[in-house]
Amino acid sequence: MAFSERVSRLKSSLIREILAAAQRPEVMSFAGGLPAEAMLPKVEWGQMPISMGQYGMSEGEPGLREALATEARALGVPCEASQVLVVSGSQQTLDLAAKLYIDKGTDILLEAPTYLAALQIFQLFGADCITVPLEADGLNLKELRTRLEKNRPAFIYLIPTFQNPSAVRYSEAKRDSVAVLLDEFGVTLIEDEPYRELTFDGGSATPIVSRLKKASWIYTGTVSKTLLPGLRVGYLIASPDLFPHLLRLKQSSDLHTNRVGQWQALQWIGTEKLQHHLSELRDFYRVRRDAFQAALETHFSDLADWNVPQGGLFFWLTLKQPLDTRTLLKAALAADVAFMPGEPFFPEPDNNSGHLRLNFSHIDPARLGEGLKRLAAVVRQAQATQAA
Amino acid sequence: MAFSERVSRLKSSLIREILAAAQRPEVMSFAGGLPAEAMLPKVEWGQMPISMGQYGMSEGEPGLREALATEARALGVPCEASQVLVVSGSQQTLDLAAKLYIDKGTDILLEAPTYLAALQIFQLFGADCITVPLEADGLNLKELRTRLEKNRPAFIYLIPTFQNPSAVRYSEAKRDSVAVLLDEFGVTLIEDEPYRELTFDGGSATPIVSRLKKASWIYTGTVSKTLLPGLRVGYLIASPDLFPHLLRLKQSSDLHTNRVGQWQALQWIGTEKLQHHLSELRDFYRVRRDAFQAALETHFSDLADWNVPQGGLFFWLTLKQPLDTRTLLKAALAADVAFMPGEPFFPEPDNNSGHLRLNFSHIDPARLGEGLKRLAAVVRQAQATQAA
Repeated sequence: MAFSERVSRLKSSLIREILAAAQRPEVMSFAGGLPAEAMLPKVEWGQMPISMGQYGMSEGEPGLREALATEARALGVPCEASQVLVVSGSQQTLDLAAKLYIDKGTDILLEAPTYLAALQIFQLFGADCITVPLEADGLNLKELRTRLEKNRPAFIYLIPTFQNPSAVRYSEAKRDSVAVLLDEFGVTLIEDEPYRELTFDGGSATPIVSRLKKASWIYTGTVSKTLLPGLRVGYLIASPDLFPHLLRLKQSSDLHTNRVGQWQALQWIGTEKLQHHLSELRDFYRVRRDAFQAALETHFSDLADWNVPQGGLFFWLTLKQPLDTRTLLKAALAADVAFMPGEPFFPEPDNNSGHLRLNFSHIDPARLGEGLKRLAAVVRQAQATQAA
Repeated sequence: MAFSERVSRLKSSLIREILAAAQRPEVMSFAGGLPAEAMLPKVEWGQMPISMGQYGMSEGEPGLREALATEARALGVPCEASQVLVVSGSQQTLDLAAKLYIDKGTDILLEAPTYLAALQIFQLFGADCITVPLEADGLNLKELRTRLEKNRPAFIYLIPTFQNPSAVRYSEAKRDSVAVLLDEFGVTLIEDEPYRELTFDGGSATPIVSRLKKASWIYTGTVSKTLLPGLRVGYLIASPDLFPHLLRLKQSSDLHTNRVGQWQALQWIGTEKLQHHLSELRDFYRVRRDAFQAALETHFSDLADWNVPQGGLFFWLTLKQPLDTRTLLKAALAADVAFMPGEPFFPEPDNNSGHLRLNFSHIDPARLGEGLKRLAAVVRQAQATQAA
């Protein structure tokens, strides 16, 4: 059997195994990042023209590209519809970016921690993943400068708004400083914003790509967190120098994104109906976030530290007494609780022990307290064993 | 700008340019491979459960996997639903296969000619494309053995039923012989069958993968030619040794295929409603094929040779007096006719002049005669110039 060299880097996915185990109905799961079922909007299909069944353009539906460009310009992203590429969920943006930039041994810059599935696809293509630590208001700028001086990364990948897993939102000042540094060193920015609209306490900040003056950029978003993930409709917007390459890579990957989902997305993007839905969604998740915070205070205040997330879907806990949280999984699942260990969110998992990512959007509130209580017991038991 | 080495192989797509030019309403296009608009079935969405909007499994919808496995077993493909992976159109199978097998310089075996978009993605990943000539009943077996003895290909990619572009359907004997050879040399078969159901003159033949005894295999199909391409729903079925790798590659590419299209496909696969639709589709395309054949006889009988396609969507013409058909494009488009030059269907286009691929499914019958007349005039003019 002669597979490609790349397949040797195709690891068994811990997440797949956790999520599979979490399917059992008795399991209280904090593991995934699923929207709450109750908040999936009811959608209508009756008016969809039959022509949406025909092959479409690789770029995406013209009307949807226009609508997405209008939304992005309102955020300060300088773009035309011709720079918008509709993709099969924003995960596909990462696949296309990997194809565009990564050979074996290509240096890239990432936040530590960073989005697990981004790490997987970048490593699959053979990237050398160099990290810059995240602080409460964004990247450590001194470390960023050092890395930019020392390495020649092909790009930097950032999730500046309610990052998965850390929930960090970059401050205005850090956004400005990051943009200045990337312009200075001419490094492409890939800015991933699935969670921008899931803000619970107001406040906002324009994307970092809108602050760049020279560097190339890819901005990517999705309807998966605001509308329906099952549509698999995401988008990227790219600086004009990158767009033609990304378009050809999209075409060779799957010809074009499904038009049925694109049509449905177009019924919502830019409408009052969507604003109303988002408002309800924020209210719903804020209540869940607050209940989660209260339950965490009860069960984890002696075990871990965390910041209250102002948006997104996750709490990121740092254990006061670190241990490899992957070793907790078996006991947790035996107690019918699932969570996501923090280690796999780092390129060097073994050097980054002691974090847990907990999703607050999907758990049944009636089982929240019991779930966190059991999880805390698992942590206590492991720490007692470790200390013994 | 430091792109990956791979991007240097990302050619400007001739097809994209032709199809873009063919968008002008006055152009009579034989270029694409679009289903006839009139034959897109009317579909209902009213019964789709809202849960189809949630994230789904990377493998695909369980019910659809079962239905596809049942259909494949009826064709003789030995498989369970656990071997079925739903993909975002069968083009994605080629992307996943490229990721699984191809490093720079990996030898792979292809038919000559072969499907253009397969060639593009395999070359993008750096494959050395070795070809075996196609004859009227399938691969040249002597050449196949020679290539298998001389090279160590990672896989062979075949479209044995109404191939795009040649319309060749492999005979029973050739299917058997190819299977025996692949077993002997232990070479993986990727068998691509988008056109199996578009058969106009009856007759069938079981897939080559169903005849293998030892070799690994990937069988891939789509609903794009039978139902609605805009759904972007295809599938692959793989031998159990390959499946786990392909599943992880799918997950890292786009998490999962859109569930809306999967749900719609499930309303049709295995039903009498689909059989009825396919019967109408075959009748419709047979009439178009016959009309095209009659018009070709009128306008091209002195210029080219061809076999009447028994299925699929294309005529493959071989000019009696060869010339590089890419040089005809400008004059053809000036005369408001679009066609697909044959050269790009070969890894070495410059050594394979003199073929035209003509689509018969999409052209308005009222404009068919005029279109072929103009195209023949373009060929005659070029040959006269060449001779002068």
